[in-house]
Amino acid sequence: MNLNEIEIIKEIWTLIKSNDLGYSVIPKTFDDACALQIGEKFLVFTNDGVAEATDKLPGMSWRDYGWRAVISCVSDLAAKGARPLGVMISLNLTRTISAKEIREIYQGIIDCAETYSFDVWGGDLGESKEIVIDCFMVGVSNRPIWRNGVKPGDLIVISGELGLTGAAFHFLLKGGKEISNMGNIHKAAYRPEARLELGVRLSEIPGVTAAIDLSDGLSRSLYELERVNETRFVIDADKIPIAEEAIEYAEANSLDPLELALHGGEEYEILFTVSPSCEEQVIDLSKELGLKLTVIGMVERGRGVYIKTEGGLTPVKEGGWIHLRR
Amino acid sequence: MNLNEIEIIKEIWTLIKSNDLGYSVIPKTFDDACALQIGEKFLVFTNDGVAEATDKLPGMSWRDYGWRAVISCVSDLAAKGARPLGVMISLNLTRTISAKEIREIYQGIIDCAETYSFDVWGGDLGESKEIVIDCFMVGVSNRPIWRNGVKPGDLIVISGELGLTGAAFHFLLKGGKEISNMGNIHKAAYRPEARLELGVRLSEIPGVTAAIDLSDGLSRSLYELERVNETRFVIDADKIPIAEEAIEYAEANSLDPLELALHGGEEYEILFTVSPSCEEQVIDLSKELGLKLTVIGMVERGRGVYIKTEGGLTPVKEGGWIHLRR
Repeated sequence: MNLNEIEIIKEIWTLIKSNDLGYSVIPKTFDDACALQIGEKFLVFTNDGVAEATDKLPGMSWRDYGWRAVISCVSDLAAKGARPLGVMISLNLTRTISAKEIREIYQGIIDCAETYSFDVWGGDLGESKEIVIDCFMVGVSNRPIWRNGVKPGDLIVISGELGLTGAAFHFLLKGGKEISNMGNIHKAAYRPEARLELGVRLSEIPGVTAAIDLSDGLSRSLYELERVNETRFVIDADKIPIAEEAIEYAEANSLDPLELALHGGEEYEILFTVSPSCEEQVIDLSKELGLKLTVIGMVERGRGVYIKTEGGLTPVKEGGWIHLRR
Repeated sequence: MNLNEIEIIKEIWTLIKSNDLGYSVIPKTFDDACALQIGEKFLVFTNDGVAEATDKLPGMSWRDYGWRAVISCVSDLAAKGARPLGVMISLNLTRTISAKEIREIYQGIIDCAETYSFDVWGGDLGESKEIVIDCFMVGVSNRPIWRNGVKPGDLIVISGELGLTGAAFHFLLKGGKEISNMGNIHKAAYRPEARLELGVRLSEIPGVTAAIDLSDGLSRSLYELERVNETRFVIDADKIPIAEEAIEYAEANSLDPLELALHGGEEYEILFTVSPSCEEQVIDLSKELGLKLTVIGMVERGRGVYIKTEGGLTPVKEGGWIHLRR
């Protein structure tokens, strides 16, 4: 492999664009979902998946793995402001998996369907060398939010608190030292939740110009927006909301909590940009949902992703999860 | 693995049914696609995929493999009487694949998109131990044809001629003896075509009660219809249309051509059932499309799949492609 994920996507996108046959599917810029307008509504389509070697963390049950396979699609739709209707599952099984394990995987999928009120419509079954589950989810939105609407002057806002998944990955994959309360850290790895209600409500605020979930981590998500919008993102290190347990875990393991928050990946919080004229509405929404929404920076003219620290303004390293990274 | 594909699907289907949240998605019986009614039209969703070890035949180029990944979805939609609008691709790549090979895979996908006039809307990229490509396709139909409308008395009709893929699989996987003209046999394996125009036209004939493509082979497809409809299928061995090259190949390799036609798998012809009152319309359609449509039998009350030969009526063995078969 001599290209990484970002390079491959860029290449594929070039090929795709040459094949545009003119259907009214949106958006026409790079995104992880697309929509067909049907009357006043939009049907939003997204796909995502898991492969065992990459995504089945140590200690993760098959039921959690089933949940994990679909939650990333729920989170993608949430970031678009779309409510999921149904999912189709491509289940690629190995010859060694047992009937009990298959049932567990499906139970995890159904747990997720019940939690977020969508249907499992069916799917396809195949055989592969490891358990690969690809999900295709259909949602509905009154106004999908894409990645491409960012304007200079917009506020950069983030939901919840970051760092728990970064801590979990460090603990599970690098054998880090436990802290007394690992509950939220384990939960972030095994049963992550999607910000569905937030996403749907954001789509009702016209001043929300773009959104993305943090499944690839904060730094990479910022760079994705930077590339699509050709603008400059400046965030403030002091303002990034980091979960208490993540800070505690970082201290116990001599890690920088900011690094966990910036490059953790598999976070399902939503990052969005919003016109400053709508700041009040965002504050109201935060109160109504009982969910922390933090302004972490601002969009400017120019290019690049920068972070303000005591040492001044420095470019953010593009971290987070990149498949096939050299 | 102690369950085969059919048993797993049956189990999963039981789980799914318990999670029906009441959206108006159809059908409610087992099928390989589903639809949402949008005004007068139906959006039809299907998914299918390929895994390298199972589906990349000896001598198959990456470009053909890309084609193969999407053609099965086109064929599924064709059997539903739906025209494809767009596809989303879950591409699970290995670390050893080259940029050139990825381009070839995508070129095959685009070949198929251009041939059948649909868009590639985007997708998801992941990493796995072999190249697994899962596709999710969205199509549109005025009247989707499902598997579940079969009535006793219906004629069983098949498009085209069978046996070429069976011959191709035998040649490529078992090292059979070549015949002088292998062109159509190779084509059936490497660049199979879907009967899209036929499927769309069948949906305009209200007397067409059910349809299925033969991607799992004739015998298994008949059993799929038998299970969903709880009826009896009787076919006539003499009437099954077998391609000349398949007969020639079978003779050269001491095989029974009927076996190739019944159990070949990966055929993309369409099997449909139709009220005898519409036989004339089927004959007209056959002439108009320049495509052989052959009545191979009839649906009766009762259960089972039977074949009439010189020796009388015998149950058909359920062959064809079953993943994870013991």
